[in-house]
Amino acid sequence: MTTTAVRGTFLDFVDDPWKHVGDEAAATRFVHDGLLVVEDGIIADFGPYPEVAARRPDAAAAATVIADRLILPGFVDGHIHVPQTRILGAYGEQLLPWLQKWVFPEERKYFDPEYAIPGIERFFDNLLASGTTSCQAFTTAKRITTELVFEEAARRDMRIIAGVTAIDQHAPDWFTTTPEQFVADSRELIARYHGVGRSLYAITPRFAYGASVELLEACRLLKQEHPDMHVHTHISENPSEVRGATQLHPDCTDYLGIYEKFDLVGPRFTGGHGVWITNPEYQRLHDAGAALTFCPCSNLYLGSGLFRLGRAKDPVNGIRLTFGTDMGGGNRFSMIHVLDDAYKVGMLNNTLLDGSVDPVDQDLAESQRNKLNWARAFYSITLGGAHGLYLDDRIGNFDLGKEADFVALDWTAGPPGADWHASLLWDGTGAPDDLETVGELLFAMMAVGDERVVAETWVAGRRRYRRDGA
Amino acid sequence: MTTTAVRGTFLDFVDDPWKHVGDEAAATRFVHDGLLVVEDGIIADFGPYPEVAARRPDAAAAATVIADRLILPGFVDGHIHVPQTRILGAYGEQLLPWLQKWVFPEERKYFDPEYAIPGIERFFDNLLASGTTSCQAFTTAKRITTELVFEEAARRDMRIIAGVTAIDQHAPDWFTTTPEQFVADSRELIARYHGVGRSLYAITPRFAYGASVELLEACRLLKQEHPDMHVHTHISENPSEVRGATQLHPDCTDYLGIYEKFDLVGPRFTGGHGVWITNPEYQRLHDAGAALTFCPCSNLYLGSGLFRLGRAKDPVNGIRLTFGTDMGGGNRFSMIHVLDDAYKVGMLNNTLLDGSVDPVDQDLAESQRNKLNWARAFYSITLGGAHGLYLDDRIGNFDLGKEADFVALDWTAGPPGADWHASLLWDGTGAPDDLETVGELLFAMMAVGDERVVAETWVAGRRRYRRDGA
Repeated sequence: MTTTAVRGTFLDFVDDPWKHVGDEAAATRFVHDGLLVVEDGIIADFGPYPEVAARRPDAAAAATVIADRLILPGFVDGHIHVPQTRILGAYGEQLLPWLQKWVFPEERKYFDPEYAIPGIERFFDNLLASGTTSCQAFTTAKRITTELVFEEAARRDMRIIAGVTAIDQHAPDWFTTTPEQFVADSRELIARYHGVGRSLYAITPRFAYGASVELLEACRLLKQEHPDMHVHTHISENPSEVRGATQLHPDCTDYLGIYEKFDLVGPRFTGGHGVWITNPEYQRLHDAGAALTFCPCSNLYLGSGLFRLGRAKDPVNGIRLTFGTDMGGGNRFSMIHVLDDAYKVGMLNNTLLDGSVDPVDQDLAESQRNKLNWARAFYSITLGGAHGLYLDDRIGNFDLGKEADFVALDWTAGPPGADWHASLLWDGTGAPDDLETVGELLFAMMAVGDERVVAETWVAGRRRYRRDGA
Repeated sequence: MTTTAVRGTFLDFVDDPWKHVGDEAAATRFVHDGLLVVEDGIIADFGPYPEVAARRPDAAAAATVIADRLILPGFVDGHIHVPQTRILGAYGEQLLPWLQKWVFPEERKYFDPEYAIPGIERFFDNLLASGTTSCQAFTTAKRITTELVFEEAARRDMRIIAGVTAIDQHAPDWFTTTPEQFVADSRELIARYHGVGRSLYAITPRFAYGASVELLEACRLLKQEHPDMHVHTHISENPSEVRGATQLHPDCTDYLGIYEKFDLVGPRFTGGHGVWITNPEYQRLHDAGAALTFCPCSNLYLGSGLFRLGRAKDPVNGIRLTFGTDMGGGNRFSMIHVLDDAYKVGMLNNTLLDGSVDPVDQDLAESQRNKLNWARAFYSITLGGAHGLYLDDRIGNFDLGKEADFVALDWTAGPPGADWHASLLWDGTGAPDDLETVGELLFAMMAVGDERVVAETWVAGRRRYRRDGA
């Protein structure tokens, strides 16, 4: 058995801060001088240093001390495209022409292991340098890419959800799969990877617009064979896409109805984006226990629209939610940058909802929920992301028995000006010992900082990235 | 006489790219192997190396070679608040409460030189590290702050437009000035700094909501005394602010009407933001030769709304335009980040304008103009910014006789992933020698990079910032 221990200042979440308006402390756990003990990648003990050290003196004596940092659970990216690593931020179309021009040609290269293997290594390097320790990922329509993604994730002991990313129409022939091939590939990969180590397979129809009825039937078949399996796809990203998809299914009243028709919507279903999801669809997502992924960098970058965060977090009829980069439709790898843009989307929504534009549209409660304070923000990319993926029994905070993924954040890092800004909030020695100041520093990191705040990233109790390269 | 010379790959603009749709080359000047000769801060010669070297063999022999970089004119920030350096990105209100909570207390510290001097030094350090060589800046309502800003800019030989930032209502007493004091302070500073070295004074009423009729009369008086002087203020940033300001002036049909009533709107007038400017106001800005500043980071960060870039760039009735950070309402110092967010605002506008949401709203021409391609983007923060400020006879490109401000950009720099992305566009030795590739790299820098792409910043022919610290 391998035992490691880390001593430092820890912050994680024990509940959803949207449930505790004005009382962030009720949703958080802050340990100014803490000790985390990890055995074979699993959190074996955690709490205030004196208490844990008394129980585990050997571990305490050998602990790695991480000073002057805030240690948080590793970040969860709910929606990312592995083979778009090199084309992130490509100019400059809305969704459908952007796919044709940039995405399909680059993704094709990942059919060849010689290109795919180093490309996938870079993908994971970039994730770790951004503090992301878990993701739900798209690959390509080919088995080989998906297989290589699982292999590389396993090599780094990272938790991943992925699957052959099925598309069989509205794309070049060389890019697509067939329903039969998809079922065969999926079955083989499920047998080899699903539930092995930290890997989970997801039934992954790329999006309804790119899926024939036969392909969606194939997804239904796989879901029947594995009722507990994740389903990962796109939904209602862009108005033209919504129109295109629903026109293919005139019997469905909306986009969600398409996935429902094929029995794909339930727990562990994630629809990426959901910018144009209607209130009736929200209600059905809620009832089904299904999730959306909010991808603000992408929604702004592709001009898709403004995700209704305050609606998604409705206290009665809210839904499960992850945040995602959607790299490369999103133009950054960093979930810190996602928080910056998520805050901006919430603030923009509020100007439309607070009644200042048109009093008729005023909805102060939804407006309040749109506002991404520090607790909501970092919850959403840690425990909230895990909850969105039905993985909150395994990752997302420092509960005993969970997998030990975490990051050490440096509030003085970032672009010019970040350090002086941080000094306004905290100018003391070491990490602050009060939650209010910690929250202000976390907010500063997302508003003024970027991935440079990630000083170290640990996966399953092992340090896998160090900003200083040591 | 001091002569310096730089050899490298140069790109600047000779016209507005919005006038040359699909033909960016017509608006740009690209010199793959160029030589720039500077005498006493002024561009004395520029062009292809062999030609210039033949004319100026001594300068050529002593030239600094900047390899593997793209050299562009220094960036122009049309709207920035010096004393908000430390509170950029502060959480989390719309405009009016945000001023009360964060801005006024921090700006007050700049009444004391002991705090102000190092703060102002940091401000300019951050500008230069971001590639910004000129700005139009707000200070505080007190003479001392404004004086110290001019002194520090002069010490660095930077072109600056600034002025006592007058507010006499809707703020704490300790924060305001009086119309009489404002006139006295302005007259003194105009005498000492206006047109001295690279400094220009601007009559700077903070915004109509914070100005009494008497204060606006004082501005009118100063403008009558100095008809060619800049006027710098805010306009139509936020719906509540628009309502607040226009309610103070029931005789005005709109926000612009307030400034017009006091004879402030004409050439060299800049209104910051203009998010909620109406079509009739656009027309009058056009007719007056007045300008707006587009501050996308701020407009998103404070949730102010989506600036109508495509309307501002109307080919017949368009207006003069600068881009600005509006730091600290904007949460970044870098104009590169401004371009990232400006692109996002344009793309969001397009979804609303391209007819995919509602065919009734379709305006494909304005939609096309909203799209910030590389040429429009970098024009807007160089020659376009200079044009917006009526400074295009002095800065903005490499024309002979202009002031020699420039930056050297490194397309491989930025967050994790930026380098591999750039390698997809250009994998050759040195800088590319075709404009199309150069444009793709510039776009990559704004979409995927950040201020880290700024390798060197030169002001008036002298290197004032080097990323590597050497």
